[in-house]
This record gives sequence, structure tokens and C-alpha cells, in this order.
Amino acid sequence: MLPFNLTILGCSSATPTSERNPTAQLLGHGEKLFLIDCGEGTQVSLRRMHIHFQRIRHIFISHLHGDHFYGLIGLISSMHLLGRTKSLHIYGPPMLKEILDLQLLASQTTLLYPLEFHPTQAEKPEVIFEDEHIIISSFPMLHRIPTTGFFFQEKPYERKIRKDVIELLKIPVHLIPKLRSGEDYIAPDGTIHPNKIITIDPPSPRSYAFCSDTAYFEDIIPVVKGATLLYHETTFMNDRVANAADKFHSTTGQAATVAVKAGVKKLLIGHYSARYDNLQPLLDEARAIFPDTELAVDGCVFEI
Amino acid sequence: MLPFNLTILGCSSATPTSERNPTAQLLGHGEKLFLIDCGEGTQVSLRRMHIHFQRIRHIFISHLHGDHFYGLIGLISSMHLLGRTKSLHIYGPPMLKEILDLQLLASQTTLLYPLEFHPTQAEKPEVIFEDEHIIISSFPMLHRIPTTGFFFQEKPYERKIRKDVIELLKIPVHLIPKLRSGEDYIAPDGTIHPNKIITIDPPSPRSYAFCSDTAYFEDIIPVVKGATLLYHETTFMNDRVANAADKFHSTTGQAATVAVKAGVKKLLIGHYSARYDNLQPLLDEARAIFPDTELAVDGCVFEI
Repeated sequence: MLPFNLTILGCSSATPTSERNPTAQLLGHGEKLFLIDCGEGTQVSLRRMHIHFQRIRHIFISHLHGDHFYGLIGLISSMHLLGRTKSLHIYGPPMLKEILDLQLLASQTTLLYPLEFHPTQAEKPEVIFEDEHIIISSFPMLHRIPTTGFFFQEKPYERKIRKDVIELLKIPVHLIPKLRSGEDYIAPDGTIHPNKIITIDPPSPRSYAFCSDTAYFEDIIPVVKGATLLYHETTFMNDRVANAADKFHSTTGQAATVAVKAGVKKLLIGHYSARYDNLQPLLDEARAIFPDTELAVDGCVFEI
Repeated sequence: MLPFNLTILGCSSATPTSERNPTAQLLGHGEKLFLIDCGEGTQVSLRRMHIHFQRIRHIFISHLHGDHFYGLIGLISSMHLLGRTKSLHIYGPPMLKEILDLQLLASQTTLLYPLEFHPTQAEKPEVIFEDEHIIISSFPMLHRIPTTGFFFQEKPYERKIRKDVIELLKIPVHLIPKLRSGEDYIAPDGTIHPNKIITIDPPSPRSYAFCSDTAYFEDIIPVVKGATLLYHETTFMNDRVANAADKFHSTTGQAATVAVKAGVKKLLIGHYSARYDNLQPLLDEARAIFPDTELAVDGCVFEI
């Protein structure tokens, strides 16, 4: 089973505070590092956590409110100044490319590495990346400007071969890939050996859903159904539900309700308003509805 | 005499490090706060130093390399989100306005306060701000892209009245402004009382010159002549003089030479390459040529 973990680089909404950076998360899967949103100061957070940021090959930007992308141009520039040559893929709203291009033009910078931009749309779910291990999709949020969430789904693992049974039945090596994918073994004498006695169940594929920023939005539920970990923004506590709706943000109760209705395994809340110094009351409110909730706090790492 | 001091918010060149932010300085004069350059993370540095950033009315951007302005859009946005209504004046290269406008457009933000943009040019010295206490000029640096320094000069203080002499000579109150500006007093009997016995010398006007980024450039010398405090970049030590020239940056020896030739009172060096963990050797090299040199380090405050 591949390592799969999430590092919180920033959990503040709107404005950074002395303790909380604006939104940025680093998702590690196998050897890959995916950066999700990139608020101001992300490159320094990565340095302070001793994360070698040149390893990041894919960056996902949910929308163009500054607290989700103002750190991107600085990170791109530092990657260049530190001699990067490997390509970098950026997924985000089309206007992001204009903003990056204009700033590179202003500094008369020609990047030393290929920057490949993949525009996202906020109309419907869409697969935006796929390799042998993972599928990444964008899907619409309900916010003031076009905004997407991102869903990272492991592909099913192959079944694991029982070497003892292979040897016992003298199964030819060239058939092993078929057994891994679930086929039965038919012996030369015609006997059928069911796959389930030759192989064992692989680990279940895991998934991570990132939902920020959004008002309460039931369209999210079928998309993130059964996610291993759901991050859902909770800018406000329940007493500010009108304020949240007005600003197209969510409350703790709304995030927890999405978690319940989507049947996810664990909920992570974040994107807290700067008005909350103490986050425990937010956690308590969410846990009253969905007990397996955790707080996203800068520097925390969650195994998925 | 008005308070006049400089707070270093960032002293790194090119890329931030864990300890050093990219260039930003806060100059306080009387009640006014002037922000000079605004690298990524400046708004958080201001918060951590408990500086109320809504008090800043004027921001000066030297040039459009990212380490000098990538924190500006975040600061502007936070000022907006925190309810600012007072106008903000920004002085910088014309393309800066395009960059800010595009980012505000992308986030569909209409600022709650007037943002007044004043384009600078890097061809010749020019007065860009003046009030009753201070004159601020921009002047050309020698860099890869159009870059200006900024010179902050106090206006001469008025002469101070000797109350004992005023009473002794029974000088009418309405004549006092003329005495403050240096005129003699002619008594009703025609006696001339020279100004120097009625008033005392005011404090000398002070000045601060900001020079970053630039190669060694003798055109700076007549502009900053006699400055109370000169900040001059020293990206490299003397052994990298060719490297410095190649990148249109300066060495410690070059900064100190400008200080000597301009006859400034004190030199402050900064904008250090991330290759230097220990800054003492840079200070030693500069002091060998200009003894009254200090290191600009994040968080330091210098009285001018």
C-alpha cells in the first residue's frame, strides 16, 4: 500500500494571522507530492517543514481569491531561481495563467523549466489527471467566483498472490498478472481453482476530497461519497449561518452534515475565520454531528 | 524633532529563507508610515511586529522582481477585507498597476478604499511626494529591469524662539513666525536685534536613501550626498564581484565605496544572497572601507 498523507501548510481564511497561513495543503501519494492551493507564504512554510519543494510536480488551485493563490508566483519564481528543470503542471481557473504570465513578463523572466497550465472549469466534475496509481478530478463548489474542489482517488490495488498456493498448484509464471487482476486458474486437467484461494484481498483504495471554499452544497455529496478523508471548509461556527450563506462559506454544522450524508470515514475542517483564536468550539460543534472530525492546523500531518 | 526610524521587515535577496524575508522596510516619520518594497510575507511580518498596517498610507515599490513586490497584492487585499476606507498611495513601475488590477478583477474585488497609483520612471531623479515635513524622490538604479531608489529628505526645521529674549525685548507675538524663518527683529526705536540672539539653531534635517537593487553605479552618489542613513544592497561579498556585475547587483566593497564617496553618515547593508548563513563577514568587509556600517536584519529598528 502506497504512503498517502496530507500536510496542512495553511488553515486560515481570507487574511493570514500570526499563527495561521492562508490555505495550502501538500498531499503525498507514493513518491508524488501534490500541492493544493498556495496562499501567500507557502514556500516559506515548505522550507520550515524541510519539504524539498522541487519535488512538487502538480499544483491545484481551487479559485482566484487571493488567500488560495497569492503564494504561487513566488513559489514558481523560487523554483526557477533554484535551477529547476523538471516540468511543473498547474491546474486552475483560466485567468490564473494570465496573472502568472503578466508577472513573469514584468520581471522579464523566462522560466528555466516547462510550466504546463491546465485550465479547470467549475461547471461539472472532470478528470484532470490520471496515472497508474491515482485519478484526480475537479468538481464544482458553490462560491462567489468559479471554484472547484479536488478529489484524489487511488486506483484499485491488484490482488495479492499467495506464493504457497502458486507453488502447490505449479501455476506457470506467465499467468500471474491474470490472477492478480482476479481471474480463476484453470489447470491443464480442466480443474477450476477459484481466484479467491490463490490470491488475497488487496487493500481498499483510499481517497481524499478537498472542498474549499463553498457554501453548503448538496451537489458535493455524490461526488465525495465514501471518501476516506474529506476536507470541508468551516469558516464560521453555527451561530453565524446567515453570515456564512451571505459570503458563500460554510459552518461547522454544514461541513459535518456533508460528511454524514456522503458517508465519509473522516472529516477534516479548516479555513477558519480570523475571529476564532480558540478552535476547540468549532471542533466540538462538528463532532456533535460527525464524531470522527479533526482540526486542520498548520503543520499537522494526517495519514489517509 | 520628529521621530524618524527604519524597521527592517525583510533582508533576503531573490528567494526567502527560513530566517529572512524578501525585501520590505517600514520607514516611520512623525505620524507617517512609509512602506518601501513589499516582498512575499510582508503582511505577516507587520502583524508579528504588532505594527497596525492600516496606518500605512504610502507604499513605494522599487522594481518588479518578485522579491520586492509579491507581498503587495496580499497586503492590499487584507487592508480591504479588514474594512479600510482611507486612501492608499502606491508608487511604482507602470506595469505594477496592470498586475494589481488583473488580480483584483480575477477575485471580483472592488476595493472599499481608494487606491491611488503613481507611476514611477527610472530615467532621472524626480520628486514623487511632498508635504510640510518631508520630500520623497525616486532616482534610477542600474539593474536588469527599470528600477528606482527612493530618497526621503526632511525639510529644514524652523529656528527655535528664545522665550526669555522675546519677553526681554517685548517683541509682538505676530512677528514670531518671521523670527522662526530667520529674520532679524527691528525694534520701534530702529534698533536691529540680529536673529541669532533671538533664536537658536534648529536640528539639522535628516535623510534616508534606499538603494536596492543595483550594480555599482556612480550616478547614485550626487543624489544621496550627505544622507544621514544610506541603505545599499550587498547581494555578494567582494570575491564575487564578477558574479555581482553579471547580475546587476553589488558587493560589500561597492556599497561601502558609494557610502564613502557620497559622504553619508551611516551605511546599512542588506539584500543578502541566501548563500550567506553568517552575515558577519559581509559586515567586516564593508567596515574595512566604511566603518560606520550596520547589517539590516529582519526585525531590527534603526533611528535616523
